[in-house]
Amino acid sequence: LHMEKMQVHNCYLYCFLASALDWRFARRPLPSLMHSPPLSPQLLNSLIPEENTRCQHGLYFQDGERRVDYVLTYHIKKPSSSRSNRHSYCFTDNAFTRTLRRGTARLGRPPPPQPRGDLEVAPHDHSMDYHEDDKRFRREEFEGNLTDMGLELEKDEDTKTPGVGFVKIHAPWHVLCREAEFMKLKMPTKKVSELLMEISTLVSKATEPLHPNVEENRVHNVKHLSYAFSREKQHLLLGNGVYTAAYPLHDVRFESNILCFCVFQLLYEEWASYSVFYKYQPIGLVRKYFGEKIGLYFAWLGLYTQMLIPASLVGVIVFLYGCATVDDNIPSMEICHPKNNITMCPLCDKACSYWKLMEACGTARASHLFDNPATVFFSIFMALWAAMFMEHWKRRQMRLNYEWDLTGFEEEEVSADHPRAEYEFRVMQKSLKKEHKTQKVPLTCRDRFPAYMTNIVMMLLMIGVTFAIVFGVILYRISTNAALHLSNNPTTRSNVRLTVKTTAAIINLVVILILDEVYGAVARWLTVLEVPKTDKSFEERLIFKTFILKFVNAFTPIIYIAFFRGRLVGRPGSYLYVFESYRMEECAHGGCLMELCIQLSITMLGKQLIQNNLFEIGIPKLKKLIRYIKSKRRSFQEEEREKKLQRYETDHFLEPFAGLTPEYMEMIIQFGFVTLFVASFPLAPLFALLNNIIEIRLDAKKFVAELRRPVAARAKDIGIWYNLLRGVAKVAVIINAFVISFTSDFIPRLVYQYMYSPDGSMHGFVDHTLSYFNVSDFQHGKEPMEPLHLGYPVDMCRYKDYREPPWSNTPYVISKEFWAVLAARLAFVIVFQNVVMLMSDIVDWLIPDIPKDISLQIHKEKILMVELFMKEEQGKRQFIDSMTPGGGKENSNKHAPIARSRSIPHTHSHTHANNF
Amino acid sequence: LHMEKMQVHNCYLYCFLASALDWRFARRPLPSLMHSPPLSPQLLNSLIPEENTRCQHGLYFQDGERRVDYVLTYHIKKPSSSRSNRHSYCFTDNAFTRTLRRGTARLGRPPPPQPRGDLEVAPHDHSMDYHEDDKRFRREEFEGNLTDMGLELEKDEDTKTPGVGFVKIHAPWHVLCREAEFMKLKMPTKKVSELLMEISTLVSKATEPLHPNVEENRVHNVKHLSYAFSREKQHLLLGNGVYTAAYPLHDVRFESNILCFCVFQLLYEEWASYSVFYKYQPIGLVRKYFGEKIGLYFAWLGLYTQMLIPASLVGVIVFLYGCATVDDNIPSMEICHPKNNITMCPLCDKACSYWKLMEACGTARASHLFDNPATVFFSIFMALWAAMFMEHWKRRQMRLNYEWDLTGFEEEEVSADHPRAEYEFRVMQKSLKKEHKTQKVPLTCRDRFPAYMTNIVMMLLMIGVTFAIVFGVILYRISTNAALHLSNNPTTRSNVRLTVKTTAAIINLVVILILDEVYGAVARWLTVLEVPKTDKSFEERLIFKTFILKFVNAFTPIIYIAFFRGRLVGRPGSYLYVFESYRMEECAHGGCLMELCIQLSITMLGKQLIQNNLFEIGIPKLKKLIRYIKSKRRSFQEEEREKKLQRYETDHFLEPFAGLTPEYMEMIIQFGFVTLFVASFPLAPLFALLNNIIEIRLDAKKFVAELRRPVAARAKDIGIWYNLLRGVAKVAVIINAFVISFTSDFIPRLVYQYMYSPDGSMHGFVDHTLSYFNVSDFQHGKEPMEPLHLGYPVDMCRYKDYREPPWSNTPYVISKEFWAVLAARLAFVIVFQNVVMLMSDIVDWLIPDIPKDISLQIHKEKILMVELFMKEEQGKRQFIDSMTPGGGKENSNKHAPIARSRSIPHTHSHTHANNF
Repeated sequence: LHMEKMQVHNCYLYCFLASALDWRFARRPLPSLMHSPPLSPQLLNSLIPEENTRCQHGLYFQDGERRVDYVLTYHIKKPSSSRSNRHSYCFTDNAFTRTLRRGTARLGRPPPPQPRGDLEVAPHDHSMDYHEDDKRFRREEFEGNLTDMGLELEKDEDTKTPGVGFVKIHAPWHVLCREAEFMKLKMPTKKVSELLMEISTLVSKATEPLHPNVEENRVHNVKHLSYAFSREKQHLLLGNGVYTAAYPLHDVRFESNILCFCVFQLLYEEWASYSVFYKYQPIGLVRKYFGEKIGLYFAWLGLYTQMLIPASLVGVIVFLYGCATVDDNIPSMEICHPKNNITMCPLCDKACSYWKLMEACGTARASHLFDNPATVFFSIFMALWAAMFMEHWKRRQMRLNYEWDLTGFEEEEVSADHPRAEYEFRVMQKSLKKEHKTQKVPLTCRDRFPAYMTNIVMMLLMIGVTFAIVFGVILYRISTNAALHLSNNPTTRSNVRLTVKTTAAIINLVVILILDEVYGAVARWLTVLEVPKTDKSFEERLIFKTFILKFVNAFTPIIYIAFFRGRLVGRPGSYLYVFESYRMEECAHGGCLMELCIQLSITMLGKQLIQNNLFEIGIPKLKKLIRYIKSKRRSFQEEEREKKLQRYETDHFLEPFAGLTPEYMEMIIQFGFVTLFVASFPLAPLFALLNNIIEIRLDAKKFVAELRRPVAARAKDIGIWYNLLRGVAKVAVIINAFVISFTSDFIPRLVYQYMYSPDGSMHGFVDHTLSYFNVSDFQHGKEPMEPLHLGYPVDMCRYKDYREPPWSNTPYVISKEFWAVLAARLAFVIVFQNVVMLMSDIVDWLIPDIPKDISLQIHKEKILMVELFMKEEQGKRQFIDSMTPGGGKENSNKHAPIARSRSIPHTHSHTHANNF
Repeated sequence: LHMEKMQVHNCYLYCFLASALDWRFARRPLPSLMHSPPLSPQLLNSLIPEENTRCQHGLYFQDGERRVDYVLTYHIKKPSSSRSNRHSYCFTDNAFTRTLRRGTARLGRPPPPQPRGDLEVAPHDHSMDYHEDDKRFRREEFEGNLTDMGLELEKDEDTKTPGVGFVKIHAPWHVLCREAEFMKLKMPTKKVSELLMEISTLVSKATEPLHPNVEENRVHNVKHLSYAFSREKQHLLLGNGVYTAAYPLHDVRFESNILCFCVFQLLYEEWASYSVFYKYQPIGLVRKYFGEKIGLYFAWLGLYTQMLIPASLVGVIVFLYGCATVDDNIPSMEICHPKNNITMCPLCDKACSYWKLMEACGTARASHLFDNPATVFFSIFMALWAAMFMEHWKRRQMRLNYEWDLTGFEEEEVSADHPRAEYEFRVMQKSLKKEHKTQKVPLTCRDRFPAYMTNIVMMLLMIGVTFAIVFGVILYRISTNAALHLSNNPTTRSNVRLTVKTTAAIINLVVILILDEVYGAVARWLTVLEVPKTDKSFEERLIFKTFILKFVNAFTPIIYIAFFRGRLVGRPGSYLYVFESYRMEECAHGGCLMELCIQLSITMLGKQLIQNNLFEIGIPKLKKLIRYIKSKRRSFQEEEREKKLQRYETDHFLEPFAGLTPEYMEMIIQFGFVTLFVASFPLAPLFALLNNIIEIRLDAKKFVAELRRPVAARAKDIGIWYNLLRGVAKVAVIINAFVISFTSDFIPRLVYQYMYSPDGSMHGFVDHTLSYFNVSDFQHGKEPMEPLHLGYPVDMCRYKDYREPPWSNTPYVISKEFWAVLAARLAFVIVFQNVVMLMSDIVDWLIPDIPKDISLQIHKEKILMVELFMKEEQGKRQFIDSMTPGGGKENSNKHAPIARSRSIPHTHSHTHANNF
């Protein structure tokens, strides 16, 4: 029993080693072959190309062989005050030590540099203050720990970049192996049956133009292990200012070396380029180069963009349907009919006069584009689309997990649970204060109470600010409207509505853009105040706060227009006033849907164009320009040397990677625009699609060329973002239900058609929605100044509301029709919400979370394993039986000797695997 | 590198072996010690106690040593026609072969019995037909396979049970080990810190009386491995009738042996007994004896019962609040006030006359018990309770998974994916028909189309039957009502309503009980028709169908009363008639809530009392009685022998285990009663609690004493049931919203108070809800026969509805109040549903799925592992460094020799583990 177990394990181990060696083989262009005897140092040295070619890239240690896997930088305080003097000094020093080092490297391979003994920093020591000393001590301690863990370091304090010291870290093979084992990396054992292979070849030939020119097969077995670098205390040290930056290097090798896979080059050409916008992303490569976490982001973004294609198609069809049926729409026909001579009540006090309903013809026709039965269908469609998207993402994630061998990987990392530096500091403070000297006292709710209170107050304040600004814009709209109405220029007055609407929307947009930046900063500040324990909880709290603030910011004006505008107007004779002089604004005839649509499109397009594209392209460009101008100040000599900067130095000048939060946040707000008010703006998915096609390549460019290479991080899923997406999708159902039933005229039309219409048609609907008002009931001083504006005296004007006529017993009281329509509207909301939720659940239930082929594959692999195991076990038993003489089967089974098989040849188990 | 890996693995292996041996040691009272040399057969034999003591239990093979892990039974066709003759023949044959076998067992341990060579069956062969031959052949083939897999068999065709052959199976040690490795069983490595231990000891002392007297610690390391028996083809063979039954044995060892843990005895005394109803269940033992699947069921049932305690407490308080405030309730006070002289319209045509509202005083007061603001609170509470229950269950499940070492276990089993016999048969049939001789053709949708159609039609038909029956009961109620009203006996007439209600509810209950049985059978039949591919899908489809049918059956009458009754009445003068003569029934004054409550309590109590307790206790008792009567017919000699039946024979007479489906189904229907209409019946949780306290012990008794021991099955969760529970909880929210807003008078009261009441109080509410009817508007022939029944002529009577009075312009048309109330009702539904859903989501989000201590524990274990690993690796590296002379650290790391450490002593790694 023991023997066979050992044997199978040996097989695993062997396979693992093979795959790991394979990776090593691929990653470092060294001619080390499996099973070959260890190469002697002399042979190795002879195989290394000219040192200069390598060194100028800075991708290797000074010995030209050990790869720089990671770089830490720190600030050096210089002793001298004169700039030029210092530089020349450094230069000579640098040249000297480098030669020295190179020499020692050539000689007998020095042991990994021991920072404690590295005396080149000593000459500068006399001017360092205590603080600087402390930092240096910590650095040395930390670097000592790193070497203890088996990493190899090289220090470079005197590069061409003044004031910055570099610690280059190389993770040797055995350290990577150890880490790989911790992470339980799986070896590739996949086998695709030949038939399947053929089919997939056919399929891939058909869709070839869509695929990026990346030979995925070639890089299939390569495992990216950079994340194996242990990040345990690094963030702590960074937080304390001991180090200033920490990053791995960009793998910029453009040479066409057969042993080099040139992932970077492939990514640069086949991913981070606008010319390939129609192709799928090479997600495998992205993951290989940037790690799973970033790989998942781009996979998600890709799927989202893909899923937007059907959504925008249907959206365009719905919009076109609206365009096509605009002339068949009876209500707008009635409004536009020249015989229609309904006199409407004035839209503002005094300055405005009575007007003919025919004047609203344009808006009524335009409203129909977005307010037709097709939008109801579309919002149901979009709710299901969102559910489908979620499901597809789950499947895609599962597939990626399988392909990236993450199926057994557990999310919880050690580093993610490590307390943050700020938290430790607070705990220390508290312990000192309470004189619990020996024991750490965790922060309680009471300690955090002031921070929590500040949080709540600030969040409410920020939301209040948003509301206040929205209210301000409303006031602007009302007052400008009133002012413009006073002008005597008729063309101005006819354009009043459109002008006011558009300017208000633009003001809103600008405010949103500004507040977005402010809120981002506020959320970060608030989260820092809270002192969360771990990085993970910090990130989650930050995301949550930012999400709430940005969402409120983006959607408050839209929600106001959708649900409140035009509802708090009052009625002729007793209008509702703000500050006793401004009458609340009304909606144009045909519902507020048109205005909602304008607001939505301006906000969405503006946000996307300005925030995403302008900011994301412009600001990095601007920063580069500033750096360029700064560098102009330097001497010519330095500039020339800059061209020969080591790779770890050029990377130091790139922007640090700030996490995926802004990228995800941007997308989730967009997802909100696409789903939340889709009933009023069917073109939203189209705009989102166009934006995202650019966004993918933009982000790709940014990651490849503008940012320091991020530390590859493992992740199984997109974490909190999935929950936020689900939340948005849920809220979307109820908001769309309300938009359809309350903002659009869909329900009143239905009610009229089936309850009040004399002939079951829509004829008379407009008349039915207008109540009568006796002009003699106007409040004193509010009646129009020009009552004869229309050319005839008016004694009854109409207004849009369901109220009793002046001649009833209870004039101007809300009528029975109002309640009936309200009930119908509410009933629609209930039915819509529950039907859509049920359908979403059914979609959720019908689409399995794990794709069939993946689950089959997993199942097959398991059976394969079991059968292989079984067969070996049987063979073993027979072997044991034949070995134990006389004892018989039974006996040997029961008291199996604890013997260990030492080495069953690898080929043996392998052929078994092939047989089954 | 390789060396340290091997070493760590050795450590794992060693630990695993130790724990497995430990288990073996515990399970079989054999003095085999770890590391002791294999015992010689002679020594073993000498250690075995008297064979007779063991054999009479039948728990061991004839050799008295190998345990019977599993039993297969099959039908033997007897050659002779005379009963007594056959028996004696069998007896002698039996005695002979047994002696023979015992002899051979005593001699040199025969190889595991080879069924092919077992010639004792041969004498009966002459009368066996082809079919029987075929079965025997299959049995032999199967048994051959079993022995090939390493299992040991013993056949016993001639026991005291005539016509039944037994195959006893013993799973030897190495087979169990292999299976354990397949299943990736984890070894127990838990370490609880001492402080925690102390605290938990204190806590457990405080709650001691609640815990069962089971020394869990003693049985802590024992692993129950019965499920290791491979079930691959067994169900197939059972389905074909090759074997008649397959079951493991009950472990009935009552002796107080220090080596025997007597799980069965403990379960019998501390679990399956009504006297311990107040204690927690010994879930660990249940799982040990019955496997994880059944363990999870009882854990779930226990948690559900526990969670019912707060729910029933709050329910009782709400009910008491209703009782306490009944005298402060203004509407019922107004109804009961003697000065109130509102004349109501007759409740039925002709036979009934006008009546005074005061007559409804009793019902109005009773209604208040269930129709008060507290019930609104209670239904919100119950929705949150359901969410909380779900969350708690997730946590409990997680905890059990951790405690039972299932955290790494993947659900998908090989056997669960094996096609069912029926499916294979259909596939074979199809293949033969289509002449694809070589290849199996899977069943397509087209093949299954007739079955699917039958399914849909039958399901609809069954639901239609339920509806028809409910309608029939309605007709019964209407007609009996009318008939009883005709009677002249005044006491009869006054009791009419109550009598009719109660009888109708009882009829409904009886119908539900009968249909429940019918539907169970229909669902099974329909699922068989569908020919699902695997057992898992068969079970899921069956559960789904049964669930739908039983739910519809149980809740249709209740839904009718809650939402339809009293709403389709029409109005005086134009009532709605069924079959042109029966007027639709109205609700009593005070809403239908009272009647809903009666219906609910009768159905729920009746179902529980009759179905659960009577059926579950009574029917097994009855079956036993029948068996007893049958056995009476046997001769005295046989009866005496029956007392000495082997354990595998007595177990054969027990009921076979039919799965957990009926148990779960019963509970989920109950969960429906507890949550769905809780707004109208706050005592439901209390009744459920009382039922479940009995139910747990009842089920426990059944499992321990009445059923064959089920094959222990592994499960990580309760599967589809969790989804069904979630579904019921979701539906409950919307149904409760409707019950509160439409069935109760909660909303009309609110609307009256805040919209119509002149003084903001409830005074005048009753008057407000009653419309006027001019008696001259009665249809001809429908007016009451005794118009002067009240002693005065009536010209205006009142009825409960919101309609215009006869004197308005549009008499008897639905009034504005109706629409206003309707809108308020619908708005309440929307608000209630969304608020409760939001709160449930928040509960879901606030309560982490993994209990903090468990996640901490998992995290700690991981860190421990990593540190141990790290330390060893470092030691190894130093070792290697010291071994490779001159080459230096760097070199040895890169080209680590692929050497294997053979045996690092176990104690080494162990001390490391203790250090960290």
